[in-house]
Amino acid sequence: VEADDVARLDALLDPLHPADIADLLEQIGPGQRRDLLALWKGGVDGDILSELDESLREEVIEGLGPGELAEAVRELETDDVVDLVEDLAPEAQEAVLGALAAADRVAVEKALTYPEYSAGRLMQSEVVRAPSHWTVGEAIDFLRSGVPLPDQFYHVVLIDPRLKPVGYATLGRLLSSRRETPLRDITEDSFRTFHVEDEQGDVARTFEKYHLISVPVVDDDDRLVGVVTIDDAMTVLDEEHEEDILRLAGVGEGALSDSVIDTVRGRLPWLVVNLGTAGLAALVISRFTGTIQALVALATLMPIVASMGGNAGTQSLTVAVRALATRDLTRSNAWRVIRREAAVGLVNGLVLALALGGMTMLLFGSVPLGLVIASALVVNLFAAALAGVFVPLLMERIGVDPALASGTFVTTVTDVVGFFAFLGLATVVLL
Amino acid sequence: VEADDVARLDALLDPLHPADIADLLEQIGPGQRRDLLALWKGGVDGDILSELDESLREEVIEGLGPGELAEAVRELETDDVVDLVEDLAPEAQEAVLGALAAADRVAVEKALTYPEYSAGRLMQSEVVRAPSHWTVGEAIDFLRSGVPLPDQFYHVVLIDPRLKPVGYATLGRLLSSRRETPLRDITEDSFRTFHVEDEQGDVARTFEKYHLISVPVVDDDDRLVGVVTIDDAMTVLDEEHEEDILRLAGVGEGALSDSVIDTVRGRLPWLVVNLGTAGLAALVISRFTGTIQALVALATLMPIVASMGGNAGTQSLTVAVRALATRDLTRSNAWRVIRREAAVGLVNGLVLALALGGMTMLLFGSVPLGLVIASALVVNLFAAALAGVFVPLLMERIGVDPALASGTFVTTVTDVVGFFAFLGLATVVLL
Repeated sequence: VEADDVARLDALLDPLHPADIADLLEQIGPGQRRDLLALWKGGVDGDILSELDESLREEVIEGLGPGELAEAVRELETDDVVDLVEDLAPEAQEAVLGALAAADRVAVEKALTYPEYSAGRLMQSEVVRAPSHWTVGEAIDFLRSGVPLPDQFYHVVLIDPRLKPVGYATLGRLLSSRRETPLRDITEDSFRTFHVEDEQGDVARTFEKYHLISVPVVDDDDRLVGVVTIDDAMTVLDEEHEEDILRLAGVGEGALSDSVIDTVRGRLPWLVVNLGTAGLAALVISRFTGTIQALVALATLMPIVASMGGNAGTQSLTVAVRALATRDLTRSNAWRVIRREAAVGLVNGLVLALALGGMTMLLFGSVPLGLVIASALVVNLFAAALAGVFVPLLMERIGVDPALASGTFVTTVTDVVGFFAFLGLATVVLL
Repeated sequence: VEADDVARLDALLDPLHPADIADLLEQIGPGQRRDLLALWKGGVDGDILSELDESLREEVIEGLGPGELAEAVRELETDDVVDLVEDLAPEAQEAVLGALAAADRVAVEKALTYPEYSAGRLMQSEVVRAPSHWTVGEAIDFLRSGVPLPDQFYHVVLIDPRLKPVGYATLGRLLSSRRETPLRDITEDSFRTFHVEDEQGDVARTFEKYHLISVPVVDDDDRLVGVVTIDDAMTVLDEEHEEDILRLAGVGEGALSDSVIDTVRGRLPWLVVNLGTAGLAALVISRFTGTIQALVALATLMPIVASMGGNAGTQSLTVAVRALATRDLTRSNAWRVIRREAAVGLVNGLVLALALGGMTMLLFGSVPLGLVIASALVVNLFAAALAGVFVPLLMERIGVDPALASGTFVTTVTDVVGFFAFLGLATVVLL
């Protein structure tokens, strides 16, 4: 394909959806990507830029001339432009903003004044609104009058004379009602608004919980300034999930198209932290070298106790982190959840201790050794269950993302408790 | 609140959104829940049932009389009834179905014949459709004629005489176009359809990727049988994420409101698997008890090598599982990703080996011991990186969910390789 044949490239790429073209750009290597873009510059439009991973977006924008860039962004809704622009370097940002029509430029610049990850950044400023005293007929005539309308809209937002949104009517109700019906009579019960500074994650969860499609956004004076639509909420929800799952695994941000160096930069810090905490566990073991010397079977068995604790701790932790993210775990039920985890830890601990203790007695022919490892396992699984809930709850309380670094803390607890309980008990009972 | 005061309870709960009432029911304890429901039976409607966690739903449905149940489900759309009914015991299912109007009952029973987790289960059978030769005016007159319409709808689906969907028009375009415009002229480019047996996860990803709002569903004969809306797709996406994150942690399905026994049942099997694989690691160590006896410092250091490998493996694994779920990792870029992970593993391994090797030399005053642990760490981080990508790719290839059990396999690899490399090298170099 890369035989300098622009016409064939056009024929191949043109029928594709922008999201598919972006996927293609993400999947090929950096060299191929440069060649393809050099050939096919003119084809890159705003929609493709919007769909690209952030890490590639800057690269692609730099490759475009100012004219192509202006062309590309002009057809986008303001929320897409904001999304495109917010992570760019200042000069690139300036270039994009300069390419916009004056009204859009003002809207985008305004949106950029809101905090990152706020509803204000997420919303589009294009809203279809109508005075609350209008009838269905008046609204339809207005929509037909040729005013510029957003690509997609699902509600007509009713506003009072001070621009405060007071309700909304779905287009379905509008279409199925008689012309003389007042708009006020067909508004939805589910009506609610967001404030421009509301956090995006909360916005997305609210969409999901209440099955919303679009929600008006108001500023400090309660005036309608934009609308967040469900497709944006869905993207935010997906990003939050990605963040949770990657942070739990100790992986910073990252995309598959990142370079090796960027990836190392994202992961190495976590491994360094883990090196420190593994050192802590080693310190515990080093206190018991005498015991191990006397009974080398302990060295064989001790990783089992630690590993089981680590796994059980990760189970509790993941459930707690997920429940905090979905707002299922709150202060009002925290104690109930802690009690349940503790009970689960004890039950699992007892069952597994029976198995592990029995096997140890059989294999090593020592009843005391079996009892020691069984007791250590129960202690460690109980500690794991508690650490798995307490650590994320504590992080949440002090305002840190519970998914971040919790894993390392929990496995440190289970390693230290596991080695200490097992080797300590062995020292007391067996020597 | 629980002072038998039905009127006050009504006053408190009535203004709440069904989703909030469901949350409330999930957060209080089982005893309180029974009391509350006994008092407030009449208030439970279909929307509340839909919002409840599956584990509670059956409990609540059992508590309702047949009359209340019939009342509750009658106002729901068919997709919500399907969702409600599919996991119920046969008798409870029969009770709900019996309460439905005949037409709805047929639609629900039809949906239940489609495979679980298919588009057919997810769709609602209520669709607003119009012959493709109609004009905007004809469509609006039809909508105003008093035909029953779904609560929420976003498109009018155009069908040909054989009921095959051929395009759709957004309500926004319908409202802003002149009455004489043919519907055919205002259809959307983004039009696509799903087949009833398409998998829900793919459906949800397609919604997100192409920013869709509603998509018609067709049967084997290409006839329009329903429509999937974005709010359902969003719920599926959220469930898939939950599944991924919980499975990665070795937690089966589960909700915070599950009992201790149910939770143990979900988690214990994974811990048993881990017990087996930890035993494998112990077996490796047991081959080297002579070496450990000779140099007990090895027992102190060996968990560090295993733990670092486990962490690095989890990093690669999580990135790979997430990329597979979002379809970012495909056959066409699998080799690129594997090469990148291998390179990242080597770089991280070298950096950390330098640190750990150096510290070991200082603390234990032994250059050979430092070199042994450094080499073992490089080997293990390289193995971890490869296992982290290969295991989920392999699972995907053989048709198993990559999130399921991958974690255990990867840590088994890193434990075994870690202990073997470290203790093996130590035996050769130090003895």
